[in-house]
Formats: sequence, structure tokens, C-alpha cells
Amino acid sequence: MLKNPASKYRPFAPVRLADRTWPDAVLTRPPLWCSVDLRDGNQALIEPMDIARKLRMFETLVAIGFKEIEVGFPSASQVEFDFVRKLIDEGRIPADVTIQVLTQAREPLVRRTFEALQGAPRAIVHLYNATAPVMRKVVLGLDEDGIVELATSQARLFVELAARQPETRWTFQYSPEMFSGTELAFAKRVVDAVTEVWQPTPGRKCIVNLPSTVEHSTPNIFADMVEWMHRHLARRDSIVLSVHPHNDRGTGTAAGEFAVMAGADRLEGCLFGNGERTGNLDLVSVALNLYSQGVDPGLDFSDIDEIRRTVEHCNQLPVHPRHPYVGDLVYTSFSGSHQDAIKKAFAARKEGEPWDMPYLPIDPKDLGRSYEAVIRVNSQSGKGGISYLLEAEYGLELPRRLQIEFSQVVQAVMDASGKELSAQDLWALFQQEYRVGQGSVSHRLVESGAAGERVTLAADVRFGDAAVAVRGAGNGPIDAFVEGLVQATGVPIRVLDYHEHAIAAGADARAVAYLELRVGDQTLFGVGMHANIVSASLQAIVSGLQRAGQAIEQQEPTWQTN
Amino acid sequence: MLKNPASKYRPFAPVRLADRTWPDAVLTRPPLWCSVDLRDGNQALIEPMDIARKLRMFETLVAIGFKEIEVGFPSASQVEFDFVRKLIDEGRIPADVTIQVLTQAREPLVRRTFEALQGAPRAIVHLYNATAPVMRKVVLGLDEDGIVELATSQARLFVELAARQPETRWTFQYSPEMFSGTELAFAKRVVDAVTEVWQPTPGRKCIVNLPSTVEHSTPNIFADMVEWMHRHLARRDSIVLSVHPHNDRGTGTAAGEFAVMAGADRLEGCLFGNGERTGNLDLVSVALNLYSQGVDPGLDFSDIDEIRRTVEHCNQLPVHPRHPYVGDLVYTSFSGSHQDAIKKAFAARKEGEPWDMPYLPIDPKDLGRSYEAVIRVNSQSGKGGISYLLEAEYGLELPRRLQIEFSQVVQAVMDASGKELSAQDLWALFQQEYRVGQGSVSHRLVESGAAGERVTLAADVRFGDAAVAVRGAGNGPIDAFVEGLVQATGVPIRVLDYHEHAIAAGADARAVAYLELRVGDQTLFGVGMHANIVSASLQAIVSGLQRAGQAIEQQEPTWQTN
Repeated sequence: MLKNPASKYRPFAPVRLADRTWPDAVLTRPPLWCSVDLRDGNQALIEPMDIARKLRMFETLVAIGFKEIEVGFPSASQVEFDFVRKLIDEGRIPADVTIQVLTQAREPLVRRTFEALQGAPRAIVHLYNATAPVMRKVVLGLDEDGIVELATSQARLFVELAARQPETRWTFQYSPEMFSGTELAFAKRVVDAVTEVWQPTPGRKCIVNLPSTVEHSTPNIFADMVEWMHRHLARRDSIVLSVHPHNDRGTGTAAGEFAVMAGADRLEGCLFGNGERTGNLDLVSVALNLYSQGVDPGLDFSDIDEIRRTVEHCNQLPVHPRHPYVGDLVYTSFSGSHQDAIKKAFAARKEGEPWDMPYLPIDPKDLGRSYEAVIRVNSQSGKGGISYLLEAEYGLELPRRLQIEFSQVVQAVMDASGKELSAQDLWALFQQEYRVGQGSVSHRLVESGAAGERVTLAADVRFGDAAVAVRGAGNGPIDAFVEGLVQATGVPIRVLDYHEHAIAAGADARAVAYLELRVGDQTLFGVGMHANIVSASLQAIVSGLQRAGQAIEQQEPTWQTN
Repeated sequence: MLKNPASKYRPFAPVRLADRTWPDAVLTRPPLWCSVDLRDGNQALIEPMDIARKLRMFETLVAIGFKEIEVGFPSASQVEFDFVRKLIDEGRIPADVTIQVLTQAREPLVRRTFEALQGAPRAIVHLYNATAPVMRKVVLGLDEDGIVELATSQARLFVELAARQPETRWTFQYSPEMFSGTELAFAKRVVDAVTEVWQPTPGRKCIVNLPSTVEHSTPNIFADMVEWMHRHLARRDSIVLSVHPHNDRGTGTAAGEFAVMAGADRLEGCLFGNGERTGNLDLVSVALNLYSQGVDPGLDFSDIDEIRRTVEHCNQLPVHPRHPYVGDLVYTSFSGSHQDAIKKAFAARKEGEPWDMPYLPIDPKDLGRSYEAVIRVNSQSGKGGISYLLEAEYGLELPRRLQIEFSQVVQAVMDASGKELSAQDLWALFQQEYRVGQGSVSHRLVESGAAGERVTLAADVRFGDAAVAVRGAGNGPIDAFVEGLVQATGVPIRVLDYHEHAIAAGADARAVAYLELRVGDQTLFGVGMHANIVSASLQAIVSGLQRAGQAIEQQEPTWQTN
């Protein structure tokens, strides 16, 4: 790092909009949402999604409630083209959802893009070209007139090609790329030139999208820029004003919220902020920020962990444990004084009262989560954490969510006994809670096809007084066992997550499997230990089933079909 | 999620500061920085740091340039007390650094806190009590007068106890906890009452710290609140005004920046935003945001990856691959048009010109990183990524940073040949680049103490024409081998990261080890494969050494001592 960075870096020029109104705006309804997970998000992955992952992402976005979904850049590659065709040809686009596709302002790409959309009932076609000075000078070699000519010539081609495909209801969208680095007067000039070609009307609007392709400035400056455009653009009443913030400075969420306060109608972004470099605007955070202020965002995150698992599967990137609203640790409390305050406030709260809970800005139950007070068994030693002791003494490497789950069990025991627990106490409690070594599963492979094909498995399962004979088929032994168990017991069971490791203990080496399960509508862990890794996994499933069953005895059955 | 959340959640009341000035403020110098990694950050970990980790964190914070470091809550537990004593008794606090400790406003805790600080040359003692309505009503059962009495009685005790320990230069700090949820008029009342007791002067200031204990509102409202306090507090010229933002809404960085624009002098936060729930203000982002605007933050992140490794070790939590400035993916570019623009802009840039690079808001070299264009070998198939092919065909699970590193090698070959590469081509290139199977290491354990003690290892290493006999001791075989190799070759080698997995290929099962190494001042990966997991690891070290050596032959030696 330079001691005098002023020699290398120039400060961003403020707008100083004297009569700005956005700092006093209060959001009382949600913006229009547009997901770009399948385009900008997908483009930024080391391994882009295959068709199966793309479909799963598309269906998840539809289920959440997105009505506008950018599904690809069909002129960029065959797979992007094919995915758009698949959605159209197989009739996978619900009647209230519009797909959107991106194209650069180059004639062959524009033509190919319209070709990809043949027969679509509705479509947003999204045109972009770079407008910032560095791009004009260094990359495109065009002056301002040249950029306007580039944009308008392709805008005219849009009109021509759309007229040839009248079966589709078209919406046009234009982005001056790197708006955040473009002079405002020039951004207005090029946008006005494009809308002059398109001639939108209040009944038939076009979309103007302002990307902070790179986030250069504090978000108040971006808000001033958006408010300036909002006030100065020609044909404003015929425009849906959209923004597309990135997050290079870590202030993308604020930039998105301020843009709406400054006059934008629509936000583009991704689930949990995936996208190039530091990512796009996190639409989940913006939506749930609105929700926590009493505004229905029109998007459904009532099972946020399920959405997270899908996103992690599709993007092959983790969501951070401290990510707002969804991270493993965001509804935990470690401090004794925090725990005490939350306990008292829960006790004082009457059902139906406004939510006013210390340290919990939102009710985790609204998102299918729960509040977790995480305690430490021996805070005096400074290294007496539950998972530390179980790992140091017994070789267990508990997954983070299991650490949190088991901590509740320990808490209950400590609350009752008032004593600190030793590593041996914890191990006994862990074995008891997770029924380690209690159930038995004897299994054999009945049938196994060629490599990669389905297997059939038979097993005898005993737990408590119950004995069940199981037979099922699947991609692997766990899959087959779960299928058989569901058939045999009628209990809906799904494997959400899976960890297994060896416990290196000389000749006594064993595998331990931790499976996060959905049993009925409970989410919980099961644990199995065995020298055979398959046996350990199947025992873990039985362990989870037993734990869910115990709760069932105490309460109304929640997992029976009704 | 409720369809009508307005029945449960109340919107945050805006301040509507009519004559606010912060939206026009431009930051031209850094705030005072205070790290709370060892207190608020540590408190929020499943496994709090042990003393060794605390010390490593403290030394890292000092090396970065922090002058104020909150090191603990000494009245809360023995380990916190002991760590403060250790810093003081062992003279570990540099002359220009001041430690800070936190205490609740309860007499026994305050007394114990001053006891922990005996003999400290300088100290900030940080008093807090809750002031928000929900805490007054539900938790403390006190009215406004009662809260003021609580705060001022403990403030008086501060004055009394400090007078008894005149060898220390004291600074007092007061936080109205949950300032973000407290009525402004009452926040002013309680702060004014405390400073009336303390009677600070412009030459001997106290610190008033405003925590957004929970982030409830858009950051413009927090900025209005801070500007209101800045203008209305009594004795403002004798106060260092500090803020302590959290990140529940994902807008903590913006809140911290706006607070300084609104009149705050000082920021409390953590490296990469660790802390309760969604974390504290990320001081690294704020500092580097300033840096990228030409302002020297006074903190040194010129080897940001080394700092990240320390933080990940101490917190036992990962830093996300998209985290601003530090994530694995933030200087990558995947899009062909982005890569093309960056290439042209690098070619056009003259040394000494201002930084104006598309898609790169900061020069990664300033932080010890590099720009990486990540290509895909077969973008047409949509599942032809390098790591996908190597995993699907050869069972390799490359760590993410190695994926990025190897992608550069593939890029160079593809640029030269202009052809797409098959899985077989990639595998040949991978073996060649990482010298898989080229060097040989025969090793034997000379001495092994009782479990957990040091081992001594001897090895014969051959690579290229070189043969080296190695003998070293360490905590394990890798450690011992590196020690011996450093002695034998004079080349500084350090293991930064380590991944190893089995390749399940029937009877031919082998382990593959990927070691990220620092060789001299190069950071690079080495890869080894062998049936024996120890041999695979040692071969990986030799692989990395060879790769570094090849670069050395082409360039000036960069790792020789000078």
C-alpha cells in the first residue's frame, strides 16, 4: 500500500444535489424485483451451472415470487441459447413470469438474441453498451457521438426485429454500462436517444437500467446520481427506472435501498448477493429489510434455509455464517447478558404484540429458523467450548449447525444441574442424545447396476421396541435406504446435508457420519458411528428418526399427513 | 412470512434532520480506529480464542497499525482477566498503543476491571449500560431517572478508582448501549450526565461511543442520529465521538462511513466484520474504501492474505470468497468482455498515471494480490470448466485458489494454441505444471516422542538434477520436512494451507495433497500424489519448490536474503 495513495487514486466527484429528497423518503411498498442469478450470477462462477442446476434455480426463483428473471445471454454460447429455448419449448414459464435476456449492442448478437426468443409469450430484451470515459477511450475507441450512434442503431434494430415476431409481447430494456462511472449529462443523453427511438408510452413502458458496474463511491453519491436521472430523463412517465448495484465497497445493499428512495422503480440483483467479484445487490437482504419494517416484499423466504441450500448447490459457493438473515450464526447469542435479555423479553411478550426483541431485529420463525442461545461449558478456561472438548478428547469434528443444535441440549442439562460439564460428561450426553450405538441397522446390497446406475438395498432396522424391514432403490445406499424407510414408516424423510469423517484411533478406526435431516417438518441432525462408512450413515438416519420420534411422543404429531 | 407484516413489525421512525450536512461531506482523512476483535469479535465465536490465538491477533492488530485495541472484558471471566494481566506484566503493549477494556455499569465489575489494569501505562476503560426503552422496561426495570442514576453512579466510581491508580494515564469511555434503539433526547440526557461527572477538557477528552447494537434502519437514519448527537451533546469539544455499528441489515459499512461524514471522530469494528450475529463494522472495508479514494487510512493491508489467514485461524471462521478487497474471487474476471477491457486498459496505462481500470476499483498489487482472468476451457458445453473436468475424469478436487492459479496456466496454453482443451489435455498439463511424479522423496521417521510431541524425520529428495539430504524436527512430518528443507537449501519456505483427499480408484487408491506455500516471496501451490499420505504431502512441497525455482531461473532471484 502506498503511503500517499493520492498520487494514484482520485476521489470520486460528489454530485452535491442541493435539493435532494431521498434522505427523507420512507419506503412503504416494495420495488419491482428482477433476479439476475442465471445471468450475471452464473457468469461469475468458476463452474457455471449446468442445465439441471439452471432449471432448479429458475424453479426456485419462481417459487420465491420473482416475476422478472434474467435467464441468460443467449448469443454468448450454445448452452445459454439452449436453456432459453428449453424454457420456451417446454412451456416452463408461468403466465405471470417474464423472462429477460441480455445482449451487447452488436448486430449479429442482437439478431441471434431475437432468434432465441421465437415463440416466447412475453420477453424483456436487454440491450447494453459501455458509456464510461475509460471504456470509450481505451476499449471502444469511440467519442460520445459514436456511443450514441452505436446505442441508437441497435435500438432501431430491436424495433425492426420485434415487429417480425408479433406473437411475443416485447419489453425493451437499455443499460448504459458503467453508469456509475459515466458523466451524468452523457448518461442522460444516450438514454434519451435510445428512448426516442423506442417511443415508450405510460401504457407500454420501456426499462432504463442504471448499473453501478463497479461500486466506486459511497452510496449517498449513487443515490444523488439516481435522483438526478429520475428528475432529468426525458419520457420519465414512460420508463420503469431500474438499478443494478454491485458491492465492491461493501455498500451495495445501501445503494439499492437509496436508489429506490431516490426514485428508482426496480432492482436487479441476486440471491444472497452472488455475482462478479464481490457480487451483485443481495435482493434477499433488501426484501427482508423491508419486511422487518412492516412492508410485504412480495417475495417468500419463509423457508430460507431451503433456498440457501439450493443456492449453494447451484453456485457451488457457500453462504457465509454471518450473512444477514440466513447465515448459521445470525440468530445465535453467545453473551450471557444478551441471552438473559432475550429470555426476559420473550417471557414478557404477548402474542400479537409488535415485535420488539433485544438483539433480534426479526422473528427467526418467520423465516423457518429459530433463536439459539449458544453456551460454553467452561468459559473460565477460555478453551472449554463443547466442540473443542469433543474434538480434542473424542476426535469428533461437529458440523457448525450441529454444534449449535447440541449446545441447546447441553444448556438444558446445565440449567437443570447448575454445574459445568467435563469432556466425559459431554460425550455421555452426546451419545445419549444422538442414540449412538443404540439402534442397529443390518443391510445388504440386493442389486447394483453398472457404475453410476441405481442400487437396491435391503435392511433390518431396530430401534427401541420397533423393528422395520426396509427395501428401497436409489442412486446410492443412503438414497435407497431413505426411500425404503419412507415407504416402510410413512414418515417423510429428506437428507439435507452430510458430513462424514474417520476417527483416527489406531486399530479401532471408525467413521462418524452427521446427517442433517428433514423429518416431517422438523430439521435436525442424526449421528452414526461404525467401522463401515455405509453403516455409519444409515445409523445416522435412524438416529435422526428416533430423535424426531421422541419429540413426537411429547407433542402432537407434526409429520403425519393431514 | 406474514402476508401483512405491518401487524407485527413497526417501521423505524425517521429523524428528518432538516439541515443535515453529511450527504455533502467528503472524507479527506481517516477516523481514529479501534479494533474490538478481541472483545466483541471473540465473544461471538463458537470457540473463543485461547491465549495463543489472542496473542497472535493482538500482534497482528499492532502490526496493521491499530493504536486503540479493546482486548477484553476482564471482569467477565478469568481468562479475559489473565490476558489483560499478561499484556501488562510482560510489557507487550507498544508505547504508541492503548489497550481498552469493557465493563458493565455494576460496581463489583467496575472494581474488578480497575484491578485488572493495575500498572498499565495507559488504558481506556469503557463503561456501558442499556438505554433503549425495551431494555429499561423489560430487562432492567428502571425508568429514565433510574438509568441516569445507574450510569452516573458508576461514572463517579470510575473517577474514584482511577485516582487510586495514578501511575496509569486513564481515558474514560461511555456507551449508551442500543443507542440505535434509544430516543435521541434521552441518549443526550444520559451522555451529558456522564460527561458532567467526568468533566473532560479539550486537552483531556473522554470518548462517547454510540453503538448500533442492532442495525434497525437504513444508514441515512443512523447518520441523521449521529449528526443530531454531534450537534447537541454538551461538552462536544471535550469528547471523541465514536460509533460502533453492527450489520444486521447488511448496511454496516455505509453506516460507519456516514457516521464519520456526520461528525463522528472514531470507529469501532473488527477485521473483515467479525462479531455477534451478522458481525460488527468491517474496518478493513472502510479503510480500503478510503484508500481507493486517495486517502491514507493509516492502516497497513499490503499483505492482506496473510492477515486473512491469521483472522481465519483465530476466529475459526472463513472469510467469504466474495468479501470486498480480500475474498478469493474479488480480483477475478470471468466474462470475456471484462477480460478484454482490462487487458486493453492495462496495455494503455502508463506507470504513474491515476488508477482508472475497468472492473478493478483498486490495484490488487497494493494489497499483495494479483488480477486473475479465469477462463473456461469449453464454455460451449456449459459444464466444461477446468476443475469440473479434472474432478469428473480424474477425481481431483482442486482447492479454489489452486483452481484460479491453474486457470492462468491453461489460459497461456490456449492463447498460444487457440484451441479448446480436452480433459486429457488438461490432465497432461496439470501433471507437467505441478511435476506430478517427477521428483522423488524417500523418508523415514528417525524419532517420535510420546503422542503429541516432536518428531524427527530424514529424507532424500531428488528433483531435476538436484539431490538433497534433509533432516529436521517438528510437530509432525510436514513441519519436520520443511524445517530440514529450509536448512538444506537456504530457501525460506512456509506452508500456508493444506488440502488432501483420497482418489477413489479401486485397488489403485491414492492420496493427493495440495499445499499452498510461501517460497521466498512467491505464493504458489505444490501438488503430490502417492499411496502414502505423508509421501504425497512431502512431494507437494517439492513440487512447489520446483515451480518456484523455475521462475527463479527466468528472473532475478527474489527469495535470496538481502
